[in-house]
Amino acid sequence: MSKYRVLIDAYDEKGLVHKVSTVFYNNDLNILSNNEFVDKENNKFFMRSVVDGDIDLDILYDLLKKVLPSSANIKVIAPKKKNIVIMATKEMHALGDILIRHEAGELEANILAVVSNYSDLESLVTKFGIPFMAVSHVDLDRAEHENKILECLAEFKDIDYIVLAKYMRILTPRFVEVYADRIINIHHSFLPAFIGANPYKQAYDRGVKIIGATSHFVNNNLDEGPIIAQEVIHVDHAYGWRDMQRSGKDVEKVVLSRALKLALEDRIFVYANRTVIF
Amino acid sequence: MSKYRVLIDAYDEKGLVHKVSTVFYNNDLNILSNNEFVDKENNKFFMRSVVDGDIDLDILYDLLKKVLPSSANIKVIAPKKKNIVIMATKEMHALGDILIRHEAGELEANILAVVSNYSDLESLVTKFGIPFMAVSHVDLDRAEHENKILECLAEFKDIDYIVLAKYMRILTPRFVEVYADRIINIHHSFLPAFIGANPYKQAYDRGVKIIGATSHFVNNNLDEGPIIAQEVIHVDHAYGWRDMQRSGKDVEKVVLSRALKLALEDRIFVYANRTVIF
Amino acid sequence: MSKYRVLIDAYDEKGLVHKVSTVFYNNDLNILSNNEFVDKENNKFFMRSVVDGDIDLDILYDLLKKVLPSSANIKVIAPKKKNIVIMATKEMHALGDILIRHEAGELEANILAVVSNYSDLESLVTKFGIPFMAVSHVDLDRAEHENKILECLAEFKDIDYIVLAKYMRILTPRFVEVYADRIINIHHSFLPAFIGANPYKQAYDRGVKIIGATSHFVNNNLDEGPIIAQEVIHVDHAYGWRDMQRSGKDVEKVVLSRALKLALEDRIFVYANRTVIF
Amino acid sequence: MSKYRVLIDAYDEKGLVHKVSTVFYNNDLNILSNNEFVDKENNKFFMRSVVDGDIDLDILYDLLKKVLPSSANIKVIAPKKKNIVIMATKEMHALGDILIRHEAGELEANILAVVSNYSDLESLVTKFGIPFMAVSHVDLDRAEHENKILECLAEFKDIDYIVLAKYMRILTPRFVEVYADRIINIHHSFLPAFIGANPYKQAYDRGVKIIGATSHFVNNNLDEGPIIAQEVIHVDHAYGWRDMQRSGKDVEKVVLSRALKLALEDRIFVYANRTVIF
Repeated sequence: MSKYRVLIDAYDEKGLVHKVSTVFYNNDLNILSNNEFVDKENNKFFMRSVVDGDIDLDILYDLLKKVLPSSANIKVIAPKKKNIVIMATKEMHALGDILIRHEAGELEANILAVVSNYSDLESLVTKFGIPFMAVSHVDLDRAEHENKILECLAEFKDIDYIVLAKYMRILTPRFVEVYADRIINIHHSFLPAFIGANPYKQAYDRGVKIIGATSHFVNNNLDEGPIIAQEVIHVDHAYGWRDMQRSGKDVEKVVLSRALKLALEDRIFVYANRTVIF
Repeated sequence: MSKYRVLIDAYDEKGLVHKVSTVFYNNDLNILSNNEFVDKENNKFFMRSVVDGDIDLDILYDLLKKVLPSSANIKVIAPKKKNIVIMATKEMHALGDILIRHEAGELEANILAVVSNYSDLESLVTKFGIPFMAVSHVDLDRAEHENKILECLAEFKDIDYIVLAKYMRILTPRFVEVYADRIINIHHSFLPAFIGANPYKQAYDRGVKIIGATSHFVNNNLDEGPIIAQEVIHVDHAYGWRDMQRSGKDVEKVVLSRALKLALEDRIFVYANRTVIF
Repeated sequence: MSKYRVLIDAYDEKGLVHKVSTVFYNNDLNILSNNEFVDKENNKFFMRSVVDGDIDLDILYDLLKKVLPSSANIKVIAPKKKNIVIMATKEMHALGDILIRHEAGELEANILAVVSNYSDLESLVTKFGIPFMAVSHVDLDRAEHENKILECLAEFKDIDYIVLAKYMRILTPRFVEVYADRIINIHHSFLPAFIGANPYKQAYDRGVKIIGATSHFVNNNLDEGPIIAQEVIHVDHAYGWRDMQRSGKDVEKVVLSRALKLALEDRIFVYANRTVIF
Repeated sequence: MSKYRVLIDAYDEKGLVHKVSTVFYNNDLNILSNNEFVDKENNKFFMRSVVDGDIDLDILYDLLKKVLPSSANIKVIAPKKKNIVIMATKEMHALGDILIRHEAGELEANILAVVSNYSDLESLVTKFGIPFMAVSHVDLDRAEHENKILECLAEFKDIDYIVLAKYMRILTPRFVEVYADRIINIHHSFLPAFIGANPYKQAYDRGVKIIGATSHFVNNNLDEGPIIAQEVIHVDHAYGWRDMQRSGKDVEKVVLSRALKLALEDRIFVYANRTVIF
């Protein structure tokens, strides 16, 4: 008995559910959960099923491939731990939250390493027996610095996701391209408000009554990639921007960990700079 | 071209989705939305599909009936306005919210009448051209009072839902039986906390930091019917119980209207004293 | 026995609380509630006290004036109903919410009139015995249209607040100047995200997972006035922009009514494009 | 220059603010923040001021003592790290959250030790250089087990707070008495709903749409002590009780850490089984 996550996205047409469910039925697969969504505006169909039964992954894939339109994207995934690298700068809360979840066995992930442009976090990371790589940006231009990081990462094959746990530097298009759709960032505002540097200062200056955090995939437009998860908290006039920053940390870490969990469980589809999440 | 809501609940077994989607496919129906849920603990399957196509309601029903297990509950519903009666006592906020939504055309409902044990709300209700029936409970025992209400309601055939918009009297089992699974109540606490009278006073006495409201179907155990929707707000030490009551109104009305909307759109399954909501 | 709201803002210096509380004490006033806030960054002091006792308003004002720095702003207010005019366009939810609260006696306000650039809302407003003034903008330029509205408003003396309950036209600086700091707007996004037209469409296009509403005082920069209240709700991929618009209405009306209530209770200080709210 | 937190609670009477602020003013103290609350129902006055200036703690205390009613409780506290002991059982999330905050320097606390009735958490705790004490309850009755814990704790003088970070055993009145008003618990429900064992199972069985967590001081009635903080999250029919348990962890840890922070900053007054929090 094997368990698979089946992810399908395709241009919508009549009969897609019928075709997929017929494959499941004819092969005696049990549907454990099933989600579908049709985006009428973009004429797109999305489906995520979890099934178990006695069939090889490749065979299931081929059977689905045969009945579905050639333009359909089909993934059949046997659940297992994914490989992640975390990048951070100096702040401990978002990284620490992931480390504790990892230690507690809550994450379907192996943490291959933590990379930082400072060494402040080394003591925390190595407590957990996880490799820590300090790659200072001092005296380097952005491309040189990223080259050094890319070299570090090159020693790991099969990185599924790179998690930016308050990594406070902008990535170049070249870096983003290498790990396209696999970089998950946490931005400390409810995007698209307060793009860029020091969003809490911006929020304070605007006099908002709510602050938030946004986890998103990174693309080449700063803070404009597809949003995975957002959360907010209420603030009032008594919050200076440093108070917002302090309180915001609790939102940041929860939102980033939530987004990471969704990715690790293969629950996210990305299209048209948006996400469908089952 | 007709549009139908198809609701199915059944004991779970392999092939249910396949069978239903085959009926849809063979009859050239278009699936506009599709939700499924399997409750493994209770071995129950739930499905709600919205389809359109060129088929009679009865024929679609019969085709589904033929392929599904005999124990399955099947509903095929052509969307149309449902008939509701609202019962209230003296408070204006929950009733007023429904009246305004009705006036704005937001509700798939005809309001047949508003029934109250006082006449305070008559002026508001009749502004909207809706019949108002005052049925005083004074000098009557509970059974006599309910008899009079039941007589009033008897003049309306086809009442789909009775909405208790802060109707502050307890209904007897006899009344509940007549309108089983069709009475929607709003209780002014996050149930199961603070069952019974004056929940805001109870909440204040307990010193809680959140208060809430719960909309549920009414059964014969006070405030213990299947929950449809809940919402809360934060309070602090500065809230006396009357402040809680005042602030709570905003939650009560939003939660009741949300539950009513779900019912009118045939999105609620009830089983085992719980709800599945698509 | 009279009851007063005392509002003070001043540059911060030692002894302000002492001076005010000494006036209260020496005149045998009872402090019913008391809030203070010091904005260290801007060196500003804010205080709102509710007191009762046997003293004339003018005398209390003079006593405070005598002990406080000459630059302090002092208000002593005897609570009474304030006069408001509501401006709206076609949507019923925000206006309707205020009308129901008014009818229920929840608002410390007289609604002098509802002004709209369409006549769609006339039927709703006149049900409540409130004057409705349709001032069409058709064939008029912005200045001409506003002139006509200003003429309508001129017949009311002592308008305390103008409430824009989804009034979908931009006000000119001239209009804003006439009612400076007295115009309360509801914008259908969590500002500063999605300034300008159709924020729900903008939100959908950005693929956000939360939407919101913001109530603020109107100044001459579109959607950039001091924020009074904000609230959000969660959405997901299944929300088209019209779904967001529908769900957003519940947030809009609650936020606008909350802001209005704060204004009517003299709980808001405005400075540096932000609000202090007690 | 010294900085003090001044906490006063007393039966309400005219002039309390005046008397306190006069002491501050006459001694040239600067008020950094000031909060007051009068509970009219119980005729109680609460005040928390943060002041700085050139005065001894004892002198300030004596001056306040002199002007205030003899029944007033007065605390003058020089901010410093408080000593805490954490008790836990097997779960890592709430403890881990506190450990990370401690490591990040976010907490005004020294963690003297972590005590558990199992040894599962030893590996995590010792990573951070914090003493771990396993005190197994196996083969011991409740009194014997607690005696052993009390012996362990006896080696620490000046324990300010004991934090129950998912300590899954009930404390006896004797234990509670030793650390009266100094034990902070997290209960995994929005109390008073679901008191006692396995609240997530209870919540699932009741079919609720929100779950929550409550942090409270421990008294001798199970889960009935004064509430410090509460938070909730929404769930739906797809959540089994183990899903609720998993998702609930994020709320539990945030609420417990929030309550702990309030305690460490001397922001909590307890009276009449409720809290006033500034």
